[in-house]
Amino acid sequence: MPPKSSAPPTIVVAPDAFKGSLSASEAAEGISAGLTEAIGPDAVIRTRPMADGGEGTLDALLDAWAVEPRSLDVDDALGRPRRARWGLSGDSRIALIEAAEANGLPHVADVPARPLEADSTGVGQLTRAALDAGAEEIVLCVGGSASTDGGLGLLKALGLRAAGSTGDAIGRGGGALDQLRHLDLSRLHPRARDTRWRIAVDVDHPLTGPHGSAAVFGPQKGARTEDIARLDAGLARLAEVLLDITGVDVAALPGAGAAGGIPAILYALLGAELVPGAELVADAVGLDAALVDADLVVTGEGAFDAPSLRGKVVGVVARRAAAVGVPALVLAGSIDVPTATARAAGIVSALSIAPGPRALPDLQAHARPLLHAAAAAAGGLLSARSTLAERPLRDGDTPTTRTTEGAGS
Amino acid sequence: MPPKSSAPPTIVVAPDAFKGSLSASEAAEGISAGLTEAIGPDAVIRTRPMADGGEGTLDALLDAWAVEPRSLDVDDALGRPRRARWGLSGDSRIALIEAAEANGLPHVADVPARPLEADSTGVGQLTRAALDAGAEEIVLCVGGSASTDGGLGLLKALGLRAAGSTGDAIGRGGGALDQLRHLDLSRLHPRARDTRWRIAVDVDHPLTGPHGSAAVFGPQKGARTEDIARLDAGLARLAEVLLDITGVDVAALPGAGAAGGIPAILYALLGAELVPGAELVADAVGLDAALVDADLVVTGEGAFDAPSLRGKVVGVVARRAAAVGVPALVLAGSIDVPTATARAAGIVSALSIAPGPRALPDLQAHARPLLHAAAAAAGGLLSARSTLAERPLRDGDTPTTRTTEGAGS
Repeated sequence: MPPKSSAPPTIVVAPDAFKGSLSASEAAEGISAGLTEAIGPDAVIRTRPMADGGEGTLDALLDAWAVEPRSLDVDDALGRPRRARWGLSGDSRIALIEAAEANGLPHVADVPARPLEADSTGVGQLTRAALDAGAEEIVLCVGGSASTDGGLGLLKALGLRAAGSTGDAIGRGGGALDQLRHLDLSRLHPRARDTRWRIAVDVDHPLTGPHGSAAVFGPQKGARTEDIARLDAGLARLAEVLLDITGVDVAALPGAGAAGGIPAILYALLGAELVPGAELVADAVGLDAALVDADLVVTGEGAFDAPSLRGKVVGVVARRAAAVGVPALVLAGSIDVPTATARAAGIVSALSIAPGPRALPDLQAHARPLLHAAAAAAGGLLSARSTLAERPLRDGDTPTTRTTEGAGS
Repeated sequence: MPPKSSAPPTIVVAPDAFKGSLSASEAAEGISAGLTEAIGPDAVIRTRPMADGGEGTLDALLDAWAVEPRSLDVDDALGRPRRARWGLSGDSRIALIEAAEANGLPHVADVPARPLEADSTGVGQLTRAALDAGAEEIVLCVGGSASTDGGLGLLKALGLRAAGSTGDAIGRGGGALDQLRHLDLSRLHPRARDTRWRIAVDVDHPLTGPHGSAAVFGPQKGARTEDIARLDAGLARLAEVLLDITGVDVAALPGAGAAGGIPAILYALLGAELVPGAELVADAVGLDAALVDADLVVTGEGAFDAPSLRGKVVGVVARRAAAVGVPALVLAGSIDVPTATARAAGIVSALSIAPGPRALPDLQAHARPLLHAAAAAAGGLLSARSTLAERPLRDGDTPTTRTTEGAGS
């Protein structure tokens, strides 16, 4: 093999987590190690671990913004005590909150599911702490929650009072929402409306209906068919009450169905902005600046499928890369997107980490070395191609001048 | 994405068969289609379907040498009638014979295995026809046989007489070899010794011992532990008799253990040359000429593992490519070779066709589209890299002259 002397490529490594196996940081490390092994130590690798608003987003943003984590004793989704992490910037201006730190589904997996009673009170306790600390902006990452209460628990923790037809306070959880008739904002936390709320959502589902929060995410929270109908009716009731009070209709708002409807109530009552989590993280980690002079971006996730291209990390990274002419490679546990569809999204190549016939648990158990090997295989092809420009001319070759490409960065 | 205008690559596609799924020709077509889809119609693709001396070698050589197939009624490994194909060049100089056409294991899979009785008589009938037709050279591809008779059945069909201690002819099959005491060559076919014999072997196993024909390949032919011991002792007996007659010791000869020992007796008695089948096919299809100005070679097989690099198609293709500075990509159903080992063999990248967690039968059933998709993914990376050289300069880029590489071929 001739020596490799062409300019080494600049590669941005910006994967999502491989759910069930690797955090985004671990994935980025594995990919970087494999690329470096194949291309050599001169390769310029820029790692930008990503997240989509769900699990792992808090860590990604804490890292990106160099914010020290804090902790607070809150209620979990079933009202039991739990210590939750959150973050506040050094100047106290920006608070970072991940809803699942309080009302996350894994934290209540030790008992039988109670989808009608689970609520978002703990998330409200975190936001109250942020407001008390003087935060001018709250970035709230939702996703992975156990509750389907439309965010009513959250707002109640900030002083909202919710009453039924008799004027009495209604019970906890999404199962009580269908009794809701009145909302009293008079005792709301004084800073709640002065703060900028940005909600990083990881799905674009509406609040209600067949694609809504209860129908789509209810089953994974333990809701049976009759529970789903009741939760969906409750969320519809909440939307009606919010429409009455504010004139804002959140029933069909894309993303309002995330985290059991938390974005709906914050959007209607407090003017919260809904931001695709992957876009927010991409901004936070400076993805565009990293891409602008790159030769390739490598992204990835556990399962690359059609939803990946609709606001998830892989789709967002590929779109931003395509906008500046940078091709994208996807490394994933499984690939289920047609080549033509991927190409239309700026993805020139999608490779599974599977090295042959394997069961899912086997791939998950060995995800780190398999991802490393897949990245090395991809890097091998990249370096093979770059080596070509350095091959000596052969008899029969057209003797045009050969130079290496001008090095970027 | 900027337009692609760099010189399209020249790629040699030289896979082995994907055993159980695709012939070498089908694999080459799938790879070529995937590469063309990713790189575009200007890519120069040269297909050179390969074989290793085993199943499929006859077809590869018939194609390469443009030889019309013939057929002959012969005995299968258990003495039952069977029509076997073979080939004779237009000038009758070269005969092409694949042993498994006569004594192949699949042809006797309809009855319980009889590993002690199976023999190579049918292969001998094919070689007799070739000699009768005046062939000056017989290319005999071995592998995939049901017999472990040291080739005695083959030679008996050419007139050799084999006797035990009483002087009576011994019985058929490897189970009778331990009675062998005398070989009488007086009635051998008159042209047998004047013909050039080239034997394409697909393994480098010796005739006898723990790595020999009976020990390694006996089990897949139905031999139990006691059968293996008897067959191994018989092959050792044959080697002793051959040593007595010819002074040639074939017991440890690499490749003599192929096809139940057929190469051993032809080497000792008729001066046959043993040639790694993949090398013979590589010469026949003109692999070196195709590689000399290529940018990449893509090879592949069902299972890429350590033996692949020892005389099998993938190893031979990669070695010949490395000799002229051409990097190799391996596409396979399963990858079980460490990256560093592959690189040392000139293989810059090895990719499985598995798109995620799948069982082997699932991969085999969809091998064609999966191979196509894997080739497209590889091609996507190659074209991504070639696109880079065409990217407009950005602010901050060093404004050195950029040209495309001089186009070969």
